[in-house]
Amino acid sequence: MNAAKALELIKSRRSTRKYTDRPVEPEKLMQILEAGRYAPSGGNSQTTHFLVISNKEILRELAVLVMQEFSKMEVTENMYASIANSIRASKGGKYIFYYNAPVLILVANQRDYGNNMADSACALENMMIMANALDLGSCWINQVHWLTDNPVICEYLSGLGLSGEECVCGGLAVGYPDTEDGLPVRSPLPRKGNPVTYAE
Amino acid sequence: MNAAKALELIKSRRSTRKYTDRPVEPEKLMQILEAGRYAPSGGNSQTTHFLVISNKEILRELAVLVMQEFSKMEVTENMYASIANSIRASKGGKYIFYYNAPVLILVANQRDYGNNMADSACALENMMIMANALDLGSCWINQVHWLTDNPVICEYLSGLGLSGEECVCGGLAVGYPDTEDGLPVRSPLPRKGNPVTYAE
Repeated sequence: MNAAKALELIKSRRSTRKYTDRPVEPEKLMQILEAGRYAPSGGNSQTTHFLVISNKEILRELAVLVMQEFSKMEVTENMYASIANSIRASKGGKYIFYYNAPVLILVANQRDYGNNMADSACALENMMIMANALDLGSCWINQVHWLTDNPVICEYLSGLGLSGEECVCGGLAVGYPDTEDGLPVRSPLPRKGNPVTYAE
Repeated sequence: MNAAKALELIKSRRSTRKYTDRPVEPEKLMQILEAGRYAPSGGNSQTTHFLVISNKEILRELAVLVMQEFSKMEVTENMYASIANSIRASKGGKYIFYYNAPVLILVANQRDYGNNMADSACALENMMIMANALDLGSCWINQVHWLTDNPVICEYLSGLGLSGEECVCGGLAVGYPDTEDGLPVRSPLPRKGNPVTYAE
């Protein structure tokens, strides 16, 4: 594996927030999930659970429930901007939290496991890189994570196969980008932050 | 970028826990850090902070402090196994938490930022993949994360450039693997866990 190409693949991953209806081929989806499953885990615990939703009816139902539950919440001072945006959009009544992507992968883990977010995020990053390698767009989706203690959402996800001992740590929208050439935008946003300090 | 090669790169990353003394070339280290810096961040906040330690004296001092602070703790029932192991090894008096790797990268983020672990873990995963592409070994290191509220450790890291508003979310040991051929072991451990559920 050429190191320069690896760096290019990693650097050219960029969040996609507009998707076409084109379904993701099952073999590509499997490669993305395989990349996620091969992420490292604390003490090799392998407790990351991938809940794959591509059924349009389920996606629609989940979107309605997410909007309904966010619309009951109130924006408070110093609230994280994206949560506040989800609440405002939900109160507006037309909120599709997963950007209408053809596939949503929810990444869950054991609630009482200290590395649940760390392991899940590594799996999500692997899946984002793999999606990029397959010319697919992807975007980290946090809305279900923010609602992971919400009883309505918990009950719905339990019907889809999540256990009560699991929490949703993150999610990934996956699909073909709605761009002119059908390919993901590859030029990364500049990194003005994310500083590096060398201890001397 | 060939998708099969990308998957192979991701799947062949495996934790390295034995390193040679060979220093990591600055240009390779920079590529690893660049991969980390290009990880996604919540709302594009870019608050991930990479503290790179390759100075042997600093590494030794930090290792002594980490051992000292763990040795003051007691193993309790139901404690996460790796934390309990760190405490036991520290009480034994010969604990080098970073596996004597030539480089330790601590990944910090804002304490009051809800996505601090998510963003940091994505950066760490990118760095692990990049290290693998460069024929370097790496291993997620959690000990400083577990001690991120410890006043002795905080004070020491503050002297290295971490602000009091930052916490350590994880760390990465990087170096050349101490293997017969000098290359990382590439055969991944089987994934018996990390299940996939398709919502139907």
